[in-house]
Amino acid sequence: AQTNVTLYGIADAGIGMQDSDAPTDSAVTVFSGVQSTSRFGVRGSEDLGGGLKATFNIEAGVNWDTGAADGVFWQRRAVVGLASSWGEVRLGRDYTPGFLAGGVGDVMGYGLFGNWLTFTAQAGGYGITTRASNGLHYTGSFGGVTVRAMYAAGEDYTGNNVGDMYGLSGVYAAGPLSVAAYWQQTDFGPAGDGQQYGIGGQYNFGMFRVGLNYGAAEIDNQPDHTGWAIGAGMKVGSGEILAQYIQQDLDVAGGADPSAKSIGLAYVHPLSKRTNLYATYGQLKNEDGGAFGLRYSQSVVPAAGADADPKAFAVGIRHMF
Amino acid sequence: AQTNVTLYGIADAGIGMQDSDAPTDSAVTVFSGVQSTSRFGVRGSEDLGGGLKATFNIEAGVNWDTGAADGVFWQRRAVVGLASSWGEVRLGRDYTPGFLAGGVGDVMGYGLFGNWLTFTAQAGGYGITTRASNGLHYTGSFGGVTVRAMYAAGEDYTGNNVGDMYGLSGVYAAGPLSVAAYWQQTDFGPAGDGQQYGIGGQYNFGMFRVGLNYGAAEIDNQPDHTGWAIGAGMKVGSGEILAQYIQQDLDVAGGADPSAKSIGLAYVHPLSKRTNLYATYGQLKNEDGGAFGLRYSQSVVPAAGADADPKAFAVGIRHMF
Amino acid sequence: AQTNVTLYGIADAGIGMQDSDAPTDSAVTVFSGVQSTSRFGVRGSEDLGGGLKATFNIEAGVNWDTGAADGVFWQRRAVVGLASSWGEVRLGRDYTPGFLAGGVGDVMGYGLFGNWLTFTAQAGGYGITTRASNGLHYTGSFGGVTVRAMYAAGEDYTGNNVGDMYGLSGVYAAGPLSVAAYWQQTDFGPAGDGQQYGIGGQYNFGMFRVGLNYGAAEIDNQPDHTGWAIGAGMKVGSGEILAQYIQQDLDVAGGADPSAKSIGLAYVHPLSKRTNLYATYGQLKNEDGGAFGLRYSQSVVPAAGADADPKAFAVGIRHMF
Repeated sequence: AQTNVTLYGIADAGIGMQDSDAPTDSAVTVFSGVQSTSRFGVRGSEDLGGGLKATFNIEAGVNWDTGAADGVFWQRRAVVGLASSWGEVRLGRDYTPGFLAGGVGDVMGYGLFGNWLTFTAQAGGYGITTRASNGLHYTGSFGGVTVRAMYAAGEDYTGNNVGDMYGLSGVYAAGPLSVAAYWQQTDFGPAGDGQQYGIGGQYNFGMFRVGLNYGAAEIDNQPDHTGWAIGAGMKVGSGEILAQYIQQDLDVAGGADPSAKSIGLAYVHPLSKRTNLYATYGQLKNEDGGAFGLRYSQSVVPAAGADADPKAFAVGIRHMF
Repeated sequence: AQTNVTLYGIADAGIGMQDSDAPTDSAVTVFSGVQSTSRFGVRGSEDLGGGLKATFNIEAGVNWDTGAADGVFWQRRAVVGLASSWGEVRLGRDYTPGFLAGGVGDVMGYGLFGNWLTFTAQAGGYGITTRASNGLHYTGSFGGVTVRAMYAAGEDYTGNNVGDMYGLSGVYAAGPLSVAAYWQQTDFGPAGDGQQYGIGGQYNFGMFRVGLNYGAAEIDNQPDHTGWAIGAGMKVGSGEILAQYIQQDLDVAGGADPSAKSIGLAYVHPLSKRTNLYATYGQLKNEDGGAFGLRYSQSVVPAAGADADPKAFAVGIRHMF
Repeated sequence: AQTNVTLYGIADAGIGMQDSDAPTDSAVTVFSGVQSTSRFGVRGSEDLGGGLKATFNIEAGVNWDTGAADGVFWQRRAVVGLASSWGEVRLGRDYTPGFLAGGVGDVMGYGLFGNWLTFTAQAGGYGITTRASNGLHYTGSFGGVTVRAMYAAGEDYTGNNVGDMYGLSGVYAAGPLSVAAYWQQTDFGPAGDGQQYGIGGQYNFGMFRVGLNYGAAEIDNQPDHTGWAIGAGMKVGSGEILAQYIQQDLDVAGGADPSAKSIGLAYVHPLSKRTNLYATYGQLKNEDGGAFGLRYSQSVVPAAGADADPKAFAVGIRHMF
């Protein structure tokens, strides 16, 4: 059959201030992807008959403030697969099961200052691995349950399986309730293994919704990284006010645990189903040597150093095409 | 509402000779973008109701002779914004107001050998900054007047505002007459400021048209760069013959002023509204230590050294899709 | 007239093992482009009237396992030209005439383990140059004969014509028979010239088809590289079993000739006209110091060293959109 091919993307840019808490580091900043990472992609599917479909997707990040592409051009997604009533099997680079499940409890949806990426995507922490290359990915939906499983080849030709990764997650969604759990493991070869696991959920009361998240990430012989979040949303007219508090630390054996507390605040104002304005503020407080950064969707407001407190503010527009 | 998404571009390639005036440097050359820089882009808009639209555009240069992309992939344009009867506000990377106004007096339209880029886009001069990242851009049209204003954040976190840029331009077009003026300023921090300003215009007599351009660019403690151009076009059948003379120099305090005189000649022959053939020749004469290059749209025929005289010839095709 | 613009590509990914014959180098591997290099492109044409068309095409390789783009983004193709009943003339980067003719005798169609790229695209051999930048390319079809000619400018400004390339090929196809021959030459300047030439063909008996290929590549003062192949295909239900044997060597004056023998096996199972599954195995045996690699479409399974015997297996899916 003919393949339908869709060119799609998200254009998200904002203007504000960012401050990594160095003596003179505050400046007007134009941000790309505060709410959702700016991107451009091609996806499609072909009906093969008998309920079977071929599917593909490539997706590239775009820095919508400077025009820069990501270092690996299509690093956001490069998959091809088959889908049917039993689910979808894909080969290539895709989100991990853990990352997709980790977003369920985030009222900010992995976007805006102070979202749950502030735990999952820390440069120095382990959080949740966002994507995996060279993977065999499975997603299946059965009633209200979505199951995801992944094996990604480390392609280590030294015989040590370095980089091999396994992941599993489940999401249950029914009416106002969504809950999710995940577990994934990476082989670091002689250095040991790493595990990531967590749970989260949201409950939607109509005018209000609340979200909870807990995550843990453990690499052999390194400090464990754990975090939790509580967030809430409140509808105001056609828009919504969002707030989230996150606490995380690294469990250093026999020493102080570098930790961070962060808050994120946002107001999202829809202009249509595809376009909205937003205003958002976030602040992160590092303690005991912590140097965690404050995340937005596309990037991070870094801490200038240990115990520095990054913060940022932006107003912007997100358009999904 | 649904977003309309358009994939568009320009495929421009030609074959000829280029000579930077080194002893053995002349060779058959296949050029990309002699008339218009070869490119590929995605743009679209969504009707938000009440006369309001969301708009976006990303655009990438393509070397249509080798397949190479630009170093910054979408460096030609990466904007998202809102448009209405009051104009359009965009965030991201875009042309500067000065660059767009500077093209009004160029009969060659910033393309073909010897066009006004020969002044604006000199590596060693200052000319007119073509684009700015991290910008807040405004364009409004009122009757025959188009006003453009820009603030671009230098995002200098050292407290010195290095790279902050401001620009303003106006274009008046009515019947056969178009005139334009611009002014823009860049903050270089402790090194001082830079200003760029100029005026230009064209008058269309029907069979003939003439264009004039003047530009000046001044950075504190550096030689001022000034240039002017006179150009003309004459219709021949369905095509047009174009010619332009440009003179420019750097005002070195207490010394000889490196300068250049250039001529550009071209014939443009339309095959349709979207496709044309062209033949073009340009020559630049450097004097008093000048090392200016001869520009076409996508790139430059460099001078081999001080006082060298680059020249080039090409025939080619431009297709706009 | 309006230009029709098509976004197209191939998504090909598989999973299997690859072994370059180093002591511990075998590992599960996710491959991109085993059958056909994964890619993404934009092409179109405009009807100019009188039987004349403007045509363009840019095409980019995509590593569908990791999301990586090629080093030169649109290196697969970047052409613009004119087409009519007399043929098509294109400027830019395109396949060489020799490469396109060299595929005629390859039953595996330059894809799957052990295809004819194993001769043409050896890193250390000379084979057949796949593409040329800065080219003037001609293709014309007259009855069953397709003629291709190319001149590509080396753009060598030192006066030595280094990199200038000429190519010519012809393909005759009538009913079950296809035959092809090519010759091309590259100027290496003071180091001399290089020639590539060969012949090949296929005959389709209905249930069976057989293919033969012979190629030679000679650079002045370097060992000649020659190879030949015999391949066959047999239909099995809706699918096809393919097999090919290739033998190649480098003719070293007064010494042993490094050589390789390779076999490729594959089964291709169509799910539709645009989508198929495949399973393929290939093995290459290097002798007398040979270090040839085993090719699939997008890349190579390298030999770990001299006389190493690379082999690989994969099952995968190819979707053409």
